[in-house]
Amino acid sequence: MLKRRSNSYRPRMDTPSSLQLRAPYLLFVGDAADEQVAKTAFGVREWAPERCCGQMRLPGCNVDLRLPEMTPASAATAGAGSLLLGVAPPGGMLLPSWHSLLFETVDAGLDIVSGLHFRLREVPGLAAVAARRGVSLVDVRHPRQSFRVATGKRRSGKRLLTVGTDCALGKKYTALALTAALRARGVSADFRATGQTGIIISGAGVALDAVVADFIAGAAEWLSPDAPADHWDVIEGQGSLFHPAYAGVTTGLIHGSQPDVLILCHDPLRKQLRWVDGYPTPALEDAVALNLMIARLTNPRVRVAGISLNTSGMNEEHRHDVLTETAARMQLPCFDPLKSSLDEVLDAILA
Amino acid sequence: MLKRRSNSYRPRMDTPSSLQLRAPYLLFVGDAADEQVAKTAFGVREWAPERCCGQMRLPGCNVDLRLPEMTPASAATAGAGSLLLGVAPPGGMLLPSWHSLLFETVDAGLDIVSGLHFRLREVPGLAAVAARRGVSLVDVRHPRQSFRVATGKRRSGKRLLTVGTDCALGKKYTALALTAALRARGVSADFRATGQTGIIISGAGVALDAVVADFIAGAAEWLSPDAPADHWDVIEGQGSLFHPAYAGVTTGLIHGSQPDVLILCHDPLRKQLRWVDGYPTPALEDAVALNLMIARLTNPRVRVAGISLNTSGMNEEHRHDVLTETAARMQLPCFDPLKSSLDEVLDAILA
Repeated sequence: MLKRRSNSYRPRMDTPSSLQLRAPYLLFVGDAADEQVAKTAFGVREWAPERCCGQMRLPGCNVDLRLPEMTPASAATAGAGSLLLGVAPPGGMLLPSWHSLLFETVDAGLDIVSGLHFRLREVPGLAAVAARRGVSLVDVRHPRQSFRVATGKRRSGKRLLTVGTDCALGKKYTALALTAALRARGVSADFRATGQTGIIISGAGVALDAVVADFIAGAAEWLSPDAPADHWDVIEGQGSLFHPAYAGVTTGLIHGSQPDVLILCHDPLRKQLRWVDGYPTPALEDAVALNLMIARLTNPRVRVAGISLNTSGMNEEHRHDVLTETAARMQLPCFDPLKSSLDEVLDAILA
Repeated sequence: MLKRRSNSYRPRMDTPSSLQLRAPYLLFVGDAADEQVAKTAFGVREWAPERCCGQMRLPGCNVDLRLPEMTPASAATAGAGSLLLGVAPPGGMLLPSWHSLLFETVDAGLDIVSGLHFRLREVPGLAAVAARRGVSLVDVRHPRQSFRVATGKRRSGKRLLTVGTDCALGKKYTALALTAALRARGVSADFRATGQTGIIISGAGVALDAVVADFIAGAAEWLSPDAPADHWDVIEGQGSLFHPAYAGVTTGLIHGSQPDVLILCHDPLRKQLRWVDGYPTPALEDAVALNLMIARLTNPRVRVAGISLNTSGMNEEHRHDVLTETAARMQLPCFDPLKSSLDEVLDAILA
């Protein structure tokens, strides 16, 4: 790391516009067997219905987004901006059988937005046709931006970051729900996406897991710039400080976000961390303590304002008991972002 | 992060051989005005003299490595494996005036090793000539490897990691000195490089600051694989848990390294962290506590075995006082890796 700085070298920062997606979307779900395979499409439909204008399904498709059926051509006529590949084929790869659809989409004048590992510009000939037609091929997983090294400087405005006891337990949906609730109260708030699904839902953001290591915190700083004093950026968390594979990403995201408020997300039924063996889910008390300790480096006044519990695996009675017991034990508002009133945690956030 | 795993997708892992450098080196220092500009060359000369066979200087050069003067052709005749660009021009860029030298080097059958930001294969025509001649262009800063996501699994063998209160205060030299001292005692030990200068010195490693965020800990796991029970990997630290730009890298490196022993590196004269404003250097007690807390996630038995002090800015008396006082206060062996006996800290490491 030394040499970069002794040379006064700084990678350039591209224009933020390179990650703005063109709405509304025609949602492509292929021959998806179930909602899980098409969860990107369902996420956009649920959280950004105003960004969706139609769906396109192939024979054998088992899911229905309850949107008008369209082709790329009819969607273009209806004002669509992009075709969104809203389905995850096995291995994250682009199926050869989709190639003709991609050319048809570009011909119709739509951008293509993909969250797959495969790069759209690796489809032979597609990039040339897109350039000729003046449309964009947007690989959300492969950001073309460069970022600056973080400065650690305080920025104006308010920031909330969702953190978790593990990966994949509700940090994105908690941030989306809190953004919507803040806006419903008349508070100026933006959801700031740090993962591909969040970016597709909100139309902008940074796929933080694809940023080069030295620039994680810098990318997080870029994501929530200076803002009016009463504006809230609600930042989607990633990973967990307790996960042996991803804690580095989480640390950089916390430091760059310099959150005023943390919301801790947790799945009470999960006893072991995902994708690793031998790592038990940490206690909420330990998770609160470590997240605050790390976050204080860039914002000494950070506080935890609530606990978001993923109770999707519980019946109504169990959910009520767990929320009540956790609130009493932690002395913090506890809620399920998809099931509970958010009034109490909003009061705590804005306090 | 979710989608990658739900698709059971894992990036491939290339063969480790892709980062093995071909020694001995012809060290190119250009027209370096001072040792600082050519510190990569001086580092290799100091720590791996057996990997150096000659130097090449341009008119106006002010430094001398005290190695035979050679051209690429005469170095090739003498058995050299690579020309090493051991000098950092302003901005990390390759100077156009060096182009003819690069072609001459490739023609002579030498690999070229560069730690510059500029990529050797961006020199028009060079990659084609290198391919024809069967030699490699090695951009140490731009690893071509992919890594697996970390597993968090315990590996066999012993590991020591140098950590610091800040960046750029002696973590690499501490690790190099401890490796040499362990070997001098007959202990099986390898230096594991995580930055470009370390890689060039030791001939292998991972430029951790260039790894994609999701794979930091995975790259660190790859770097120190399973080993015999009494073998020590001595791993070069990066950044600091207290640095708002780099703590994410440090966290991933600690978790993936799963160190048995930490050596905390510190510069007693540094009051503020480098490259940021408003971040004081942490107290040694706080640095010991936080590094242990983070490291315990992947190795609950981790311990701190010593404090490495960079006393390069002190006279003999000041150095002695600081080392003595710090040792008494921290109840740990304290040493300057370039000035002190390492017997006491070695005893503590091997205890």
